[in-house]
Amino acid sequence: MSTATACPPLLAPLLIRFDPTTGLSPDRPALQRRLSDLAGVFVDETARQARQAINDDLVYEFHDLGLPERSEEIAFGTSIVRAGQVAGEYFMTKGHFHTILGTAEVYYCLQGEGFLLLEDQAGHWSAQPLRPGSAVYVPGGQAHRSINTGAKTLITFYAFRADAGHDYGTIARNGFRMLCVERDGQPEFIPNPRWGSARGNRD
Amino acid sequence: MSTATACPPLLAPLLIRFDPTTGLSPDRPALQRRLSDLAGVFVDETARQARQAINDDLVYEFHDLGLPERSEEIAFGTSIVRAGQVAGEYFMTKGHFHTILGTAEVYYCLQGEGFLLLEDQAGHWSAQPLRPGSAVYVPGGQAHRSINTGAKTLITFYAFRADAGHDYGTIARNGFRMLCVERDGQPEFIPNPRWGSARGNRD
Repeated sequence: MSTATACPPLLAPLLIRFDPTTGLSPDRPALQRRLSDLAGVFVDETARQARQAINDDLVYEFHDLGLPERSEEIAFGTSIVRAGQVAGEYFMTKGHFHTILGTAEVYYCLQGEGFLLLEDQAGHWSAQPLRPGSAVYVPGGQAHRSINTGAKTLITFYAFRADAGHDYGTIARNGFRMLCVERDGQPEFIPNPRWGSARGNRD
Repeated sequence: MSTATACPPLLAPLLIRFDPTTGLSPDRPALQRRLSDLAGVFVDETARQARQAINDDLVYEFHDLGLPERSEEIAFGTSIVRAGQVAGEYFMTKGHFHTILGTAEVYYCLQGEGFLLLEDQAGHWSAQPLRPGSAVYVPGGQAHRSINTGAKTLITFYAFRADAGHDYGTIARNGFRMLCVERDGQPEFIPNPRWGSARGNRD
C-alpha cells in the first residue's frame, strides 16, 4: 500500500480540549449566536426584538475548527445552548440540513437536558431527548436543531463528515414543523403556524 | 431537490445511551476483548499467557452498532479500556489502521487518563494525551491505539466514517514502534524491540 496513492495529504494530529461543564475550549474560540443573530428563528419575532432591545443575550455557541472540507475528514466540536426562552419558546439553534443531504451526524450529550429536533424534507419529524450520556444519531436527510429545555446549559459533542456542508436557508424560509414551548412547566411540541409558508421554495 | 435522487435510503434516528462513568450502554451490548483475545499484543507474550492462565481478565470493550458501512454514515460508540498492566506494559487496545487509509477519526475522552498512540505507515509516531474533556483527532493514514495509564477505566466516545473499515492485520504483524510502560510510577514510551520485524509485509 503506497502512501502516495492511498492517502490525501496528511494532517497533523489535533488535541483540542472542551470543558465538559462549559463546552468551551481553551484551544479554539467558539462562534457565538446572540438574539440579534436570530431574527425570524423564534415564532414570536416581536418578542425576540423586544428582548434583544433590553439585552442582546447569547443563545448558543459552537465550534468550527476549519478542517478541510473533504469526505475523509470528520468535523467535530461542542454545541452550547444557553437556558432561556423567547415568549415561552425555548432557546435553540437555527437548525440546518446538510448540503450533502444524505450525510449523517452524531451528537453526544455532556450536560443539560433538551431535545434534538429532526425533520426530513417530507415533513416527518421526531424529537430525540438529550440527557447526559445520550447519543443521538441524525441519519442522512434530516434537518436538526438543538433545543435546551432545562435550567443548565445544554452541551453536546458532535461529529460529521467534514464536507457535509450546512444548508441553513431551507429552515430559515420554512421553519421546523413543530415548536418546542413550555406549558405548565414542561416542554411540549406544538405545530408551527408558520411552517411551510415558503415550501416548494427549498434550496 | 428530490429525495429519490439526492438521498441514499434513510435510516431512522437512533438514541443510544452510554453511561459516561462505565462507557456501557443499556441499549446495545459491548464487544469484549480479554487477555485470551490479545495473543502477541503485549511485548511480553509469556507474561500475558501466565496472567491469562490465572484469570482471563477483561482488557477492553467497544461498540459496533452495525450501521451500514457507507460513506454517508458515521460509526460511533465508546471505547472502554480497563486499568491494568502486563509485565509493566499498560492495558491497551489492539490498534488498527483504517482500510480506507485516508479516513480520519475523533475521540472525546469522558473519563480516565492515558494516551492515543498514533503511527503512520512511514513509522512517524506521536502520543496524544487523553484526559476528561480532551478531543483527539486522528488524521487519515494513522494507526491508533488507546492506552490506559491511570487507575480508573479509560472511556472515550469515538466517531468515524462508517465505511472506513478496520485493518488490524498490519499492526498485528508489525506492532507499534513504541511501547507504553510504567517506569518509576509514570508512563514512558520506549522503543518496541519487535517493531517492524515483518515490515514490508503490510496489507
